[in-house]
Amino acid sequence: MKDDFTALWGSGLDPQSGNTLQRQLHSKIRTAILDGKLASGARLPASRVLASRLGVARITVVQAYDQLTAEGYLESRTGAGTFVAGSSPDQLLQTSKTHAAKHETPQTEYRHVLLSGMPALDQFPITIWARTTSRAMRQLNTEMMYHSDVMGYAPLRRNIADYLQASRSALCDASQIMIVSGLQQGLFLLANATLKPDAPIILEDPGYDGMLASAAATGRPVHYTSVDDHGALPPKQAGGMLVTSPSRQYPLGHTMPHSRRLEMLAWARTTDSLIFEDDYDSEFRYGGHPLNSLQGIDGGERVIYGGTFSKSLFPALRLGYLVVPRPLIERLQKFRNAIDSFPSITGQIALNAFMNDGDFTRHIRRLRMVHAKRKNLFTNFAHTHLRRFLDFQPSDAGLHLLAYTADELVKSGVKDKQLAELAQSAGIGAVPVSNTYQFAPKQQGLLMGFANLDDEKIEGAVKKFSSAIYKVLNTTTN
Amino acid sequence: MKDDFTALWGSGLDPQSGNTLQRQLHSKIRTAILDGKLASGARLPASRVLASRLGVARITVVQAYDQLTAEGYLESRTGAGTFVAGSSPDQLLQTSKTHAAKHETPQTEYRHVLLSGMPALDQFPITIWARTTSRAMRQLNTEMMYHSDVMGYAPLRRNIADYLQASRSALCDASQIMIVSGLQQGLFLLANATLKPDAPIILEDPGYDGMLASAAATGRPVHYTSVDDHGALPPKQAGGMLVTSPSRQYPLGHTMPHSRRLEMLAWARTTDSLIFEDDYDSEFRYGGHPLNSLQGIDGGERVIYGGTFSKSLFPALRLGYLVVPRPLIERLQKFRNAIDSFPSITGQIALNAFMNDGDFTRHIRRLRMVHAKRKNLFTNFAHTHLRRFLDFQPSDAGLHLLAYTADELVKSGVKDKQLAELAQSAGIGAVPVSNTYQFAPKQQGLLMGFANLDDEKIEGAVKKFSSAIYKVLNTTTN
Repeated sequence: MKDDFTALWGSGLDPQSGNTLQRQLHSKIRTAILDGKLASGARLPASRVLASRLGVARITVVQAYDQLTAEGYLESRTGAGTFVAGSSPDQLLQTSKTHAAKHETPQTEYRHVLLSGMPALDQFPITIWARTTSRAMRQLNTEMMYHSDVMGYAPLRRNIADYLQASRSALCDASQIMIVSGLQQGLFLLANATLKPDAPIILEDPGYDGMLASAAATGRPVHYTSVDDHGALPPKQAGGMLVTSPSRQYPLGHTMPHSRRLEMLAWARTTDSLIFEDDYDSEFRYGGHPLNSLQGIDGGERVIYGGTFSKSLFPALRLGYLVVPRPLIERLQKFRNAIDSFPSITGQIALNAFMNDGDFTRHIRRLRMVHAKRKNLFTNFAHTHLRRFLDFQPSDAGLHLLAYTADELVKSGVKDKQLAELAQSAGIGAVPVSNTYQFAPKQQGLLMGFANLDDEKIEGAVKKFSSAIYKVLNTTTN
Repeated sequence: MKDDFTALWGSGLDPQSGNTLQRQLHSKIRTAILDGKLASGARLPASRVLASRLGVARITVVQAYDQLTAEGYLESRTGAGTFVAGSSPDQLLQTSKTHAAKHETPQTEYRHVLLSGMPALDQFPITIWARTTSRAMRQLNTEMMYHSDVMGYAPLRRNIADYLQASRSALCDASQIMIVSGLQQGLFLLANATLKPDAPIILEDPGYDGMLASAAATGRPVHYTSVDDHGALPPKQAGGMLVTSPSRQYPLGHTMPHSRRLEMLAWARTTDSLIFEDDYDSEFRYGGHPLNSLQGIDGGERVIYGGTFSKSLFPALRLGYLVVPRPLIERLQKFRNAIDSFPSITGQIALNAFMNDGDFTRHIRRLRMVHAKRKNLFTNFAHTHLRRFLDFQPSDAGLHLLAYTADELVKSGVKDKQLAELAQSAGIGAVPVSNTYQFAPKQQGLLMGFANLDDEKIEGAVKKFSSAIYKVLNTTTN
């Protein structure tokens, strides 16, 4: 550490610089981590020691450390000091007792998203995005201004096809990619364009209510299939289209094993049905290995794969994509041309440039790290403060945790809808799991988002939520 | 003129400058026009005279004049010289014989749009748009990233409401504005959200086939109402929803007089129907005065007003808006939330900033001038080269002209579909008018776009189209 110390801190900080000492120090450490000079797991000098060596106030060092901790570059371990965070989510997960250091400096303010499936929006590289967008707009030409391919902007579709082949073993080329505004639009377009008016749409029960809204909007009959620990079961009846989330069943979180995937595809073949594979948050897996997509196993005959940038970038970007089996493309184009054409070229060319520059991959990689850290923090604090009330289910992927309501709470008559409100008041994105059930026996519990919480606010939020439950219980008991 | 001359040209051009002499001169004249030093109608010195005074080659002056003429700042009148173009469309229209000077300098290349309803895409201020977009993106915050108002971005909706109140006498406030991807999406959402499944949609015959596609996609019965010289007639039956274009009937171009507007509203009240007012290109009126919108007369009870930025900015922006009667808002929100949510926040905040800066108004004003000039040029050349074949109808608005096929051509068996192809091959956006008819007796003719043609290419395109028709006629006769 001594040599590193000299190499890193020797040159000192510059009080004459336009930047505050804290910002200079923050930048110095961050660069050292990114350059590999400070390796993952390396211990940083105690704030008192470093402050004295650099000739700055201790608070300057503390605040720089805190900022870096909040950003996921550093971790502080109780009683042991401050360390460079693991560079991979796996390394982060092996860190058993992690918590964020106390914080006096004001963070960039942002409203918490009170939904369970939000990524770490505070991590979005706004400056890079603005610069990239501006560059893309300067390249607007007449051809782009009257662009009229309802499949979307061709270079973006190539980028997405490359990404899916590499990361999801999807079998596709760019000609099969259709850019959509989201997966609900995807389902709506697919059902209208490819199903007979009376062909049913089969949804998972429990499942995502957004998909139910979209399926119902098509005016077609909606049926359900059950879910077990291996994800959705092959439906008992024929469906025009089955919507399923094999990577990580929503809301229960199970990954569909290979054998079940084969059963699903056999069902589709036997009943002459289509499958819409909703891969809503496949980017965020913190342990284990992702299985090949259904689409990849099927070879793209009966499976339409759907993905979204809502979770890897931000929801209001309203961009997602379908991988469409070739025989369905023309019908889909025709229907879409009638009602919507395509999402604005402006967002499409900006995203394309962002992907070209490698910024998309970099952002995903960074989010994985940040999300894994927040998941770990959240889990630890929840274990301490909430285990009496909520039974957290193990999870190695996604943006939310599932926790069933504990018996004591159920017996007290506290419903998960009320719990969700309490969680939201405490700043935690939460959805009552009972909302996701249709005919299957409703469970009580919460889907709790951990990804869009400031690291240093997690403990406070969890404690606040816990106190709120105690208060309700006391009221109920009295 | 003498004093102006000294004030304007006295300081000469700088051969040492990084810019060519032509570009310096171009910029000098342009600035003088924009600053008001060269007033509309002012005659410029003959190129020979100015070249000698400035000590530059004559070709330099000729090319600078040509460039400015192509851009709409100058006009050259045969035998009379070069003048500063009228600053208002009306002034431009009073210029009887206008044509573009011959051109040797290469223009920015852009592909012609072979559709009839395109604005002058070459005039879009790309640099300003890029700068504005970049600024808007730097202001992205977490709240915007998870923005979830299906009506659209509130500040943009306020801007649109202000614009509509001022320019279209619409009676609305921002809470009634829904941002949509276009008017076809508007109709699709409205019909699905507000009509019973078997309620018919009534379209104008002849009418816009895009609206027919959207109406058919809803699965509802589609009926038609006839069109006369006062626009659409009140339908004979009750309609769930009538779609009409009173500002400028598509394709025939008639403006619905006030008396017919009142009849339409009476029909809607009597039959308990809704009217979708498709105001697709109301921004471009070159003479006369626009009438109040149906929505404004109605007070927003039975009329949903729809407008688009496809023609005032560019089509691939995919942004338009509805003015929704208050009782329909909630149903519309619910349906839209199920299938699409809202167009990307990125385009919405960019457009909002563009409107805030006054750039939208400036651009519309500029387009009116450029379009009026191109319309005038096109009409003159068409009169010279095409009148044997096509009977051009008078028009004082919009982006295209309607011309019926002349008897000679009809008798030769040349169909408008073939004519449209010939026009497109000559670089003129053209649509066969027979395509716009359903049950009404089909007319033969063309809708020809004049707005998205380079000024200096109009004559060539018209001549090329004319020669192509002669060729076909000769083949037919032989």
